[in-house]
Amino acid sequence: MSGAAYFRKAVEALGPYVPGIQPEGAGWLKLNTNENPFRPSPRVLAAVREAADERLALYPNPTAEPVRAAAAAAFGVAPEMVIVGNGADEVLAMVCRAFLGKGDRVLVGDPTYTLVEVLVAVQEARLTRVPLRKDFSLPARFFGRAARVVYLPNPNAPTGVLHPIEAVDRLCETTDGVVVLDEAYVDFAREHGLGLVEKYANLIVLRTLSKSHSLAGVRVGFGIAQAEVIAGLMKVKDSYNINALSQAAAVAALDDGAYAQACVRRVVEQREFLAGALRALGFRVVASEANFVFAKPPTRPARAFYDELVSRKVLVRHFERPRVSEYLRITVGNERQNEALLKAMKLTMITLGLKVPDTPFGVVKF
Amino acid sequence: MSGAAYFRKAVEALGPYVPGIQPEGAGWLKLNTNENPFRPSPRVLAAVREAADERLALYPNPTAEPVRAAAAAAFGVAPEMVIVGNGADEVLAMVCRAFLGKGDRVLVGDPTYTLVEVLVAVQEARLTRVPLRKDFSLPARFFGRAARVVYLPNPNAPTGVLHPIEAVDRLCETTDGVVVLDEAYVDFAREHGLGLVEKYANLIVLRTLSKSHSLAGVRVGFGIAQAEVIAGLMKVKDSYNINALSQAAAVAALDDGAYAQACVRRVVEQREFLAGALRALGFRVVASEANFVFAKPPTRPARAFYDELVSRKVLVRHFERPRVSEYLRITVGNERQNEALLKAMKLTMITLGLKVPDTPFGVVKF
Repeated sequence: MSGAAYFRKAVEALGPYVPGIQPEGAGWLKLNTNENPFRPSPRVLAAVREAADERLALYPNPTAEPVRAAAAAAFGVAPEMVIVGNGADEVLAMVCRAFLGKGDRVLVGDPTYTLVEVLVAVQEARLTRVPLRKDFSLPARFFGRAARVVYLPNPNAPTGVLHPIEAVDRLCETTDGVVVLDEAYVDFAREHGLGLVEKYANLIVLRTLSKSHSLAGVRVGFGIAQAEVIAGLMKVKDSYNINALSQAAAVAALDDGAYAQACVRRVVEQREFLAGALRALGFRVVASEANFVFAKPPTRPARAFYDELVSRKVLVRHFERPRVSEYLRITVGNERQNEALLKAMKLTMITLGLKVPDTPFGVVKF
Repeated sequence: MSGAAYFRKAVEALGPYVPGIQPEGAGWLKLNTNENPFRPSPRVLAAVREAADERLALYPNPTAEPVRAAAAAAFGVAPEMVIVGNGADEVLAMVCRAFLGKGDRVLVGDPTYTLVEVLVAVQEARLTRVPLRKDFSLPARFFGRAARVVYLPNPNAPTGVLHPIEAVDRLCETTDGVVVLDEAYVDFAREHGLGLVEKYANLIVLRTLSKSHSLAGVRVGFGIAQAEVIAGLMKVKDSYNINALSQAAAVAALDDGAYAQACVRRVVEQREFLAGALRALGFRVVASEANFVFAKPPTRPARAFYDELVSRKVLVRHFERPRVSEYLRITVGNERQNEALLKAMKLTMITLGLKVPDTPFGVVKF
């Protein structure tokens, strides 16, 4: 009998989540997975080096208590309201395992973060996609629906649109199930929903150190909710899910919030520069509150732009799905990276037979 | 509505897996979680320090390809036959998610590694416990049973008993489901089952760097199986499940197998010393092929020994379950730790009103 015959039908049918490419080798301009262009805090790097000793032979704290405590202080909640995950992705996986049985309804906007589809399918739950409006805002029919879980990235991926806090509040109020508010990108936005956790027993907020704290490599994310909800999630958590090195890095990062805030400010400045420059080139750029822009290229298909950029060793993200396939999702880099991206974009336009507008950013230097 | 009301019934009913205590503060003799008493390879510590730089801002390789390649070389299999987990615990969790639907049958010996109970309950699968024989070997009725998954730690936890390779072979042959052979402790044993993976499409072998490679703190484990099985497990794996620092540590550890082997040899020597010394004190010690001994104290209840040892800041493991509650599971320490354990054990015997036999190890120094 073939090994494939043993899998659950739901798993057999599953297409795996495909993360953005992590290219090997030098020379790539990597703007495809929304990493922070600035290095982690020096205090984080020092903490990791100090943790690299004989203590690695010992199991880490099973619930990452030091990280919980530091996160609770940073978020202004009690430690019992925090669960630490191997990335926010793991927290999302735990949420699906804890709340979703076969046939249960999950409500998402369309487009949304695609990982949720895989996790829902593993639970044999049913996904209901509600198309977002033309401007990617939430339609009225997203509210008051019967659903076991409503999943809402905010700012949304891959659009960067921030749904106003009032909308999130109304969602918690009108949903009979659990609202998962994925705030992976919220540190780059003008407001956040953490304050609603005290108000709503059915709200779980996700946060991560990957973007705002320049630590995608250490895999630390958080779920923040009322203590009863966190206690339940703890039951489906893998024991020792956060290794000792990531715990050391996370505590140092949370303790040095000022460093991350400075990096975030620079990314936000660069985001506005990049959005403006792309608009000047004729792109339709969605107003973003994240560390990426979602931009529809002029005249030619986004895929043509994507392929041409790859040939120039520039990686952005393109999704082959209805509606979003018209766009490129471009991570905001540092000044040097964004200049290089714009230069590559102009050359791409020329290659594709387009005229490059003569704008403040429009002078192509060869 | 209370937050607890949103959970699946199966999760509501769940008791969480309780790992061994990780005591805070100094002065503890910690022999309760089967960690290796020797420090990790210096090459591992150097690799972690070198990895602590600006690259931590980037996502790690999503499938830990460098670790897969190093593990494949170490295990003598193709990289496509390896999946890397956040500890072998995560691989076991992935296996349960991939193969177990509601009501599916899982077969385990009794006693076994208790984590599996939690994972099976999350899937709403049914656990069938087959009592092991008096000497903790596999009874005839363990073979040829209808089960979706058979889970067999080998050497077994918490007994340390190694089931012979012929028994594992027969188990794969006669089981219509998947056999999960958890070899977390096998580096301390005289034989292993990796060679059976080529022969049986229904076999998944688990390995870990936690014990033999002194790296419980970095959380890296493996599943080894035929490529089709690994490809299926990949679908239920969290994206980016192994962080960049653990990947660096794992590659260095696997490349320095000679160091780990030397540590393993010393642990095995110490295991035989410790088992002999405990027998001389009147304990019934199960023949162990792991890095711990499973020992039944003379005359008084194991719990009384446990409590008395804790009061002396000596941590061993005691399970409040029928049959195994008569035993203590004691991790094999280094020479100094084992001497200290034996000294504390003799003082405990005196406190409990027992006579300490006058053996080569029997002189209590105050």
